Amino acid sequence: MQEEHRVSVGGLASSLVQSYRKTTSITNIEKKSFPSRQAVIRVTEELRELLFPGYLGRTTLCWENVEYYVGATLDRLFNEMSGEISKSFNHPAHTSQDATCSECQGRACRETLQFFQKIPAIRSLLEEDVQAAFDGDPAARDVDEVIFSYPCVVAISIFRMAHELFLQGIPLIPRMMTEYAHSVTGIDIHPGATIGRKFFIDHGTGVVIGETTVIGDNVKMYQGVTLGALSLPRDERGQIIRGTKRHPTIADNATLYAGATILGGGTEIGKGSVVGGNVWLTNSIPSHTKVIIEEPRLRIMQNLES
Amino acid sequence: MQEEHRVSVGGLASSLVQSYRKTTSITNIEKKSFPSRQAVIRVTEELRELLFPGYLGRTTLCWENVEYYVGATLDRLFNEMSGEISKSFNHPAHTSQDATCSECQGRACRETLQFFQKIPAIRSLLEEDVQAAFDGDPAARDVDEVIFSYPCVVAISIFRMAHELFLQGIPLIPRMMTEYAHSVTGIDIHPGATIGRKFFIDHGTGVVIGETTVIGDNVKMYQGVTLGALSLPRDERGQIIRGTKRHPTIADNATLYAGATILGGGTEIGKGSVVGGNVWLTNSIPSHTKVIIEEPRLRIMQNLES
Amino acid sequence: MQEEHRVSVGGLASSLVQSYRKTTSITNIEKKSFPSRQAVIRVTEELRELLFPGYLGRTTLCWENVEYYVGATLDRLFNEMSGEISKSFNHPAHTSQDATCSECQGRACRETLQFFQKIPAIRSLLEEDVQAAFDGDPAARDVDEVIFSYPCVVAISIFRMAHELFLQGIPLIPRMMTEYAHSVTGIDIHPGATIGRKFFIDHGTGVVIGETTVIGDNVKMYQGVTLGALSLPRDERGQIIRGTKRHPTIADNATLYAGATILGGGTEIGKGSVVGGNVWLTNSIPSHTKVIIEEPRLRIMQNLES
Repeated sequence: MQEEHRVSVGGLASSLVQSYRKTTSITNIEKKSFPSRQAVIRVTEELRELLFPGYLGRTTLCWENVEYYVGATLDRLFNEMSGEISKSFNHPAHTSQDATCSECQGRACRETLQFFQKIPAIRSLLEEDVQAAFDGDPAARDVDEVIFSYPCVVAISIFRMAHELFLQGIPLIPRMMTEYAHSVTGIDIHPGATIGRKFFIDHGTGVVIGETTVIGDNVKMYQGVTLGALSLPRDERGQIIRGTKRHPTIADNATLYAGATILGGGTEIGKGSVVGGNVWLTNSIPSHTKVIIEEPRLRIMQNLES
Repeated sequence: MQEEHRVSVGGLASSLVQSYRKTTSITNIEKKSFPSRQAVIRVTEELRELLFPGYLGRTTLCWENVEYYVGATLDRLFNEMSGEISKSFNHPAHTSQDATCSECQGRACRETLQFFQKIPAIRSLLEEDVQAAFDGDPAARDVDEVIFSYPCVVAISIFRMAHELFLQGIPLIPRMMTEYAHSVTGIDIHPGATIGRKFFIDHGTGVVIGETTVIGDNVKMYQGVTLGALSLPRDERGQIIRGTKRHPTIADNATLYAGATILGGGTEIGKGSVVGGNVWLTNSIPSHTKVIIEEPRLRIMQNLES
Repeated sequence: MQEEHRVSVGGLASSLVQSYRKTTSITNIEKKSFPSRQAVIRVTEELRELLFPGYLGRTTLCWENVEYYVGATLDRLFNEMSGEISKSFNHPAHTSQDATCSECQGRACRETLQFFQKIPAIRSLLEEDVQAAFDGDPAARDVDEVIFSYPCVVAISIFRMAHELFLQGIPLIPRMMTEYAHSVTGIDIHPGATIGRKFFIDHGTGVVIGETTVIGDNVKMYQGVTLGALSLPRDERGQIIRGTKRHPTIADNATLYAGATILGGGTEIGKGSVVGGNVWLTNSIPSHTKVIIEEPRLRIMQNLES
């Protein structure tokens, strides 16, 4: 059997390589340099440890050793992250076989520095987000529980980092980061979305926040909320047009309950308004308005087979 | 470039440490001792292997070696789990720098013993839950498939363990366990919920079961069901009040179909009642009642752009 | 304390082993041989690297080394996969203690070869699926971003492999594979479902596609779509009947928006039809028809406590 299967495996290998030559759009051989998804996820997790020192990762920090710990960690992360960013530029000069060119490496170092300089500001935003979660959920015992176990903290902390890289124009990596958060939390936030301060998502599974969404300050939403596109604008050749405002705007202090679906680039939810559970909205709502769905009709029956 | 970036990293490190001194509520340096999330997840997975011997983890058990295997595993888990529980008490006497005090270690050992003594009873409940899943799903080939691949088995087995730790008053760890299950399954069950025998959740993604929910025996639900709070009671200072009954009660033999949302601490679904898909309920339903939403109106159009 | 707890652990171990003898339906000691879930997941991930060469896993392939790389990988995967398949047959002749019998090993090798021969055809389908995702989502920058970060690519690539193993009648492993994809993406596709070409799921969290679903070509759906069973047919003894067509049929070019729920084996969505967000359907829709739910009533209030 062993011999026999080795022979067959030889045949399988050549037919698979033939398919690599044929099915080229999902084959990257001697084509492009790409960041490694595994490396991006590893860097993302280490950055989260720096955002919440003493909570995630190393838990025995003291003021005497923390600067050394942070410096050593940043230095290692700097090298790893700038390497992945350099590959993401996919300069025509380098393919998957070469090292990236020195021009891309220099640019990647500058972009990485620029990103690292934003980390303290990101932490200030996250402190407010964590407080908003505690204030908004009666089940929260304390802020520590929120940091340790709330999926929105994972999703928002990764989003706020990915959004800065998105604004810097780094390819691929921001979306890899937010899709990693999506996989872990069920919360799908596009790195291009604009999200204000004190943002809280409770439970979160199924939440979708599209690329051109704009969210104000102090907005609270629950699981299954969709902020999506109403329809796909197409050019004369029938190709969808990319880059237009396709997703809604949510003003300050709005609350969106579980399963609310709000669609369209022109759709705005006014300040302090409330969208009830399972509401499906494709037009704007003024400020301080509440939209709810009517109660379902009830029927009593003996036969309960549905 | 290397030299240059090292200089810059030095500056980044000190500004980040400054932000640690400033943004203190998400910084744990010389403050508290906490359980390690990674360790809690590792212990949870090893406990699941003990719950389903020969299915998860080591698959070559025989009656001659099983008691030795179980004893060695329990001994190792006992030390690891009691250590994490001891840290979770966060006694003022110990911070993240110290070992925990002997008083906490003694209490942690007693709590761990008490929890381990409940494992056989948890297994009896899980045997019924697994059978309920097989009986409730025509797609299930056999009980083995249910144990190996049904997300509800992961979520319920972790919930039933976390709930016992919650009842013992262990901080942080029960929620870390159920949020780990949430991340893996999309099923979000608060460790404080009360859930009866023969519980089955089919598919499960998006299910939310709140802290003060009470669920009877032989209840079946599908993906996207929310058992949530209707509104957040606030005290005179506008702070939300914690610890009141905010989530619904589901009586024996009830069935909740996909996307049903049931809200409020006073809302009760009666015995044997059925809540249809996407129904949104904020008031009680008597026994043996079926609630469904009306069929949507249909329209025929040529232009299919939505 | 140490001594004391060792004594107690001894008692815990024997009571747990007693529960293994009592609660037998979730105990696999000297009973059956099963594939290892960890091994199945590892093989699944390595197969995905072969499906998208140079994207996942090793990123420095060139045409000179690729055949060697593919051959070595296939040879290793062949041995691991045929071993797990052999255990899945659970021939009465072997229990969890024995090696599997040579008859099962021979059959497993033949099944593994048959599966590996299908990989090039699976790649051709995936190339079309990836293109459909790019064409269907204005947020996609390029095909590379789709391959690297779209959850539907993970779910569909694993589904298309698991479906072939399901058609070959391999026990347990196909469902283990799709439930792994479910855990990572929130997209729950039963390996028995029939899905045509150019299939795109946007976002995807909460999607459920049941065992007997039939989906045509060029179908697009969004997060939270359920293609499920309407009710469970039961035999005269009240046992649910397995294996009948319980899930809907979706014809070519149909679009299903977020949260649509379509139930029943006789329910068919006609060619080119559109089912709007949150629609709940239990009967068929003709071709080129659009079904949407009515807009919710709006109310304006000052008091925004919901």
